Amino acid sequence: MPKATIKYTGGMQFVAVANSGHAVVMDGPLSVGGNNSGVSPMELLLMGTGGCSGMDVISVLQKKKQHVTSLEIHVVGEKADEHPKKYTAITIEFVITGKNISEEAVKRSVQLSMDKYCSVKATLEGTAQITYSYKIIEA
Amino acid sequence: MPKATIKYTGGMQFVAVANSGHAVVMDGPLSVGGNNSGVSPMELLLMGTGGCSGMDVISVLQKKKQHVTSLEIHVVGEKADEHPKKYTAITIEFVITGKNISEEAVKRSVQLSMDKYCSVKATLEGTAQITYSYKIIEA
Repeated sequence: MPKATIKYTGGMQFVAVANSGHAVVMDGPLSVGGNNSGVSPMELLLMGTGGCSGMDVISVLQKKKQHVTSLEIHVVGEKADEHPKKYTAITIEFVITGKNISEEAVKRSVQLSMDKYCSVKATLEGTAQITYSYKIIEA
Repeated sequence: MPKATIKYTGGMQFVAVANSGHAVVMDGPLSVGGNNSGVSPMELLLMGTGGCSGMDVISVLQKKKQHVTSLEIHVVGEKADEHPKKYTAITIEFVITGKNISEEAVKRSVQLSMDKYCSVKATLEGTAQITYSYKIIEA
């Protein structure tokens, strides 16, 4: 089972260690008594969304023999105004750059991730409305 | 609005940069073609849960003049067997160590986070059943 241990390290700083062995430093902005020494917990949800779906998309595009030279995912969250200020919406844009990339292959890879495989998206969509788009750059 | 840009960096590795300016390396395990060079996207959700709730708890305990010498949060996720293998349950254990810590203060700080303030918990609980506990160590 996925696990993480999060240790308080002073101010508003916490160091999280996951059972994969990797660590992430989290902190809050100055406005909440933090020192902005690390990523914010809510930002981690957006990062995870992009990483999870990106892994799906690149896997499918590689299986479909697409010559991808760059893949970038832009994720934007919208938070409720009132506490607990949860994400109400998340938008994901996939930007795929490459040579003679098939639009059909991109569309399929993104759909497979969004509809079938992406665990992070599937977890977050119980609360946040998730919308997505893709852009292909020939280069 | 919170934003992150996630760039593909080869294999199954992605580097995410959030608009706080901080970066996180993500990767998959060897079993999915990754190189385990970074945290997994799903682990980030657990880390965020611990960081977010930890910041709430330490803030309240400090306001209540509690002498906390250590705060550690253990977060465990349970995933569905079938794709998209979303989190179905998350358990959070707060371990507070200190001198003459008030059980009432701890209980209140945890409840405030869980019921009112923690944005990450509020986002994830649309899908995952979240349960929590706390432990006080006198030291």
